[in-house]
Amino acid sequence: MNDTPAPFTEGDYAARMTRAARDAAEAGLAGLLVTPGPDLVWLCGYRPTAITERLTLLVLTPRSEPRLLVPSLERADAEAAPGAGALRISDWRDGQDPYAAATGLLLPNGRYGVSDVTWALHLLGLQEALPLTTYRPLTVVLPMLRAVKDEHEVARLAAAGAAADAAYEEILSVRFAGRREKEVAADLAGLLRRHGHSQVDFTVVGSGPNGANPHHEAGDRVIERGDTVVLDFGGLKDGYGSDTTRTIHVGEPSAEERAVHDLVRTAQQAAFEAVAPGVPCQEIDRRARRVIEDAGYGEYFVHRTGHGIGVTTHEPPYMIEGEDTPLVPGMCFSIEPGVYLPGRFGVRIEDIVTCTGDGGRRLNSTDHGMAIVE
Amino acid sequence: MNDTPAPFTEGDYAARMTRAARDAAEAGLAGLLVTPGPDLVWLCGYRPTAITERLTLLVLTPRSEPRLLVPSLERADAEAAPGAGALRISDWRDGQDPYAAATGLLLPNGRYGVSDVTWALHLLGLQEALPLTTYRPLTVVLPMLRAVKDEHEVARLAAAGAAADAAYEEILSVRFAGRREKEVAADLAGLLRRHGHSQVDFTVVGSGPNGANPHHEAGDRVIERGDTVVLDFGGLKDGYGSDTTRTIHVGEPSAEERAVHDLVRTAQQAAFEAVAPGVPCQEIDRRARRVIEDAGYGEYFVHRTGHGIGVTTHEPPYMIEGEDTPLVPGMCFSIEPGVYLPGRFGVRIEDIVTCTGDGGRRLNSTDHGMAIVE
Repeated sequence: MNDTPAPFTEGDYAARMTRAARDAAEAGLAGLLVTPGPDLVWLCGYRPTAITERLTLLVLTPRSEPRLLVPSLERADAEAAPGAGALRISDWRDGQDPYAAATGLLLPNGRYGVSDVTWALHLLGLQEALPLTTYRPLTVVLPMLRAVKDEHEVARLAAAGAAADAAYEEILSVRFAGRREKEVAADLAGLLRRHGHSQVDFTVVGSGPNGANPHHEAGDRVIERGDTVVLDFGGLKDGYGSDTTRTIHVGEPSAEERAVHDLVRTAQQAAFEAVAPGVPCQEIDRRARRVIEDAGYGEYFVHRTGHGIGVTTHEPPYMIEGEDTPLVPGMCFSIEPGVYLPGRFGVRIEDIVTCTGDGGRRLNSTDHGMAIVE
Repeated sequence: MNDTPAPFTEGDYAARMTRAARDAAEAGLAGLLVTPGPDLVWLCGYRPTAITERLTLLVLTPRSEPRLLVPSLERADAEAAPGAGALRISDWRDGQDPYAAATGLLLPNGRYGVSDVTWALHLLGLQEALPLTTYRPLTVVLPMLRAVKDEHEVARLAAAGAAADAAYEEILSVRFAGRREKEVAADLAGLLRRHGHSQVDFTVVGSGPNGANPHHEAGDRVIERGDTVVLDFGGLKDGYGSDTTRTIHVGEPSAEERAVHDLVRTAQQAAFEAVAPGVPCQEIDRRARRVIEDAGYGEYFVHRTGHGIGVTTHEPPYMIEGEDTPLVPGMCFSIEPGVYLPGRFGVRIEDIVTCTGDGGRRLNSTDHGMAIVE
């Protein structure tokens, strides 16, 4: 599973762009406007060296071929992208108005979906150049555009998950007691890279009370014997994400620490067992939450249960109350309930799961038990 | 110069925010809206672990204290930022509407400056929640907000430049001929980190014909004896940027390669000598361009002459035709003319320069001559 996967082909990208344009039309849009970021990578394989104030814009419409407008300086890079053969590329030069250049690709009164990460600078430039156009965020109007992964994408997510699992197995052997969280985090980042990650997005090491802040990263706190430690780590391998959490203990846990850990593990399992085609996303959240609420810890579970994963480590679909989108085979997402006791400790357990025709399949396989480390 | 500088204080951040709010009012704005990115780092020292779909919003207005709205999960991180003491922080929880939460901080019909990098997702959310508000990009309405650096900022840019210079001196000793551009780029990135860079933004190695693409990064091409090689490298050290270009040669250059190199060097020097308070930015571009045009190479100088630098490696002011903002002491920017001969080779020479009361001061000090490497 650690071999480099076959690259996506021009045909793969062409098919994605065709489907995106069709979905846009079905949603009542004139087209989609996509600037550098994960949508652009997914649609045409183009990742500019840097995302800058210079406008790069992919325009997808149902009635014409995909058009990519780029700064003239970056044209050669764009032409080298794996999906470039499916695009018609044009450019603008420093000193020209890029928004004026873009107007030629747009309907003067069109309603467009625009990638979430498009800079306000660019959106305001387009709104000014074409005052009658209107815009909607891509994840609002087509939230599930990238949500259903094909088998090649699931294979990449599985490979990223296996690499993260290997990193986790190895981190259990390092010394925890007496070292700073940051040092363990650096070890974990090194292991992820060693197991094939090209990008490490986060290596949370939340020891003792720091574990009770669900978005604590890793700090100068020296880990002590007796600490519960939340490890949440992930990044990109061959362009697809990993994101795994395990909660471990330095030395023997107390009865309460063990009880909270068992509770979170039970909640994670309950949510996982609910995964099946047609089940609304919010039901995954409800299943985990109910277990924790029934045990009296509801107020300490302060975040949604999960998020999608693909070419980014956080994307739709979200497992959250109010998200009634039904699960579809090929959707891949985290299930990560947690309990956070302020000033004391936290517990979170997270796997990436894919929905298959007959239920959930975990893309992580390491033990959910509370590992004891030194 | 490689010592860690004293951190900016809460007072430094408070002063920046006060000035920004005052500048906004003078520009006829109700206030400034800033989301994660360089403006937020500069204004209050807060850099969230990750920039996500969850809204984080700094609101600066002339009549009230700075307000920061954050996801509840990230509140503890925000409270730990060095400028947090100068902010009033509030939060919103998963499941709540963040734009509704933001409306309490905004005038329903206000005209706001918004940071360039704000996601379209968030701007459209605000536009929908408060349909009578209007927005302008921060670099359009207050382009020079971060442009004039104080002495502590110039010191950090100088330290970053010195570190980049040290990396350049050392890269001249590595083997070029017979190695891939990517390998030399990795050496250069390692040297930048060794000399104190926490982030490497780019390490361009453009050998032979690749040097004629001004935005080529570094590829699989094997560098050969006889190649001209463009090296353009930079990143962040202690939060401030470096960005330097030198063009070198593997073995002895031809007469033409040497002539083009001399031309670019002369153009760079001419532009540098024009730096003085009150000189319009476009004049810096014109001086470099005139030298190259007069030699008959004008069509091969395909980009602007420079860009500002600070907490990012590219920011206003831009040294470009049409930019008539006068230079002010404390402005720091690149001067980087180039000549690009398609299919053959390119030459670019770049220093970071700061405007002082009596002319320009280079923040790079390595030789502009065409170094000969093996």
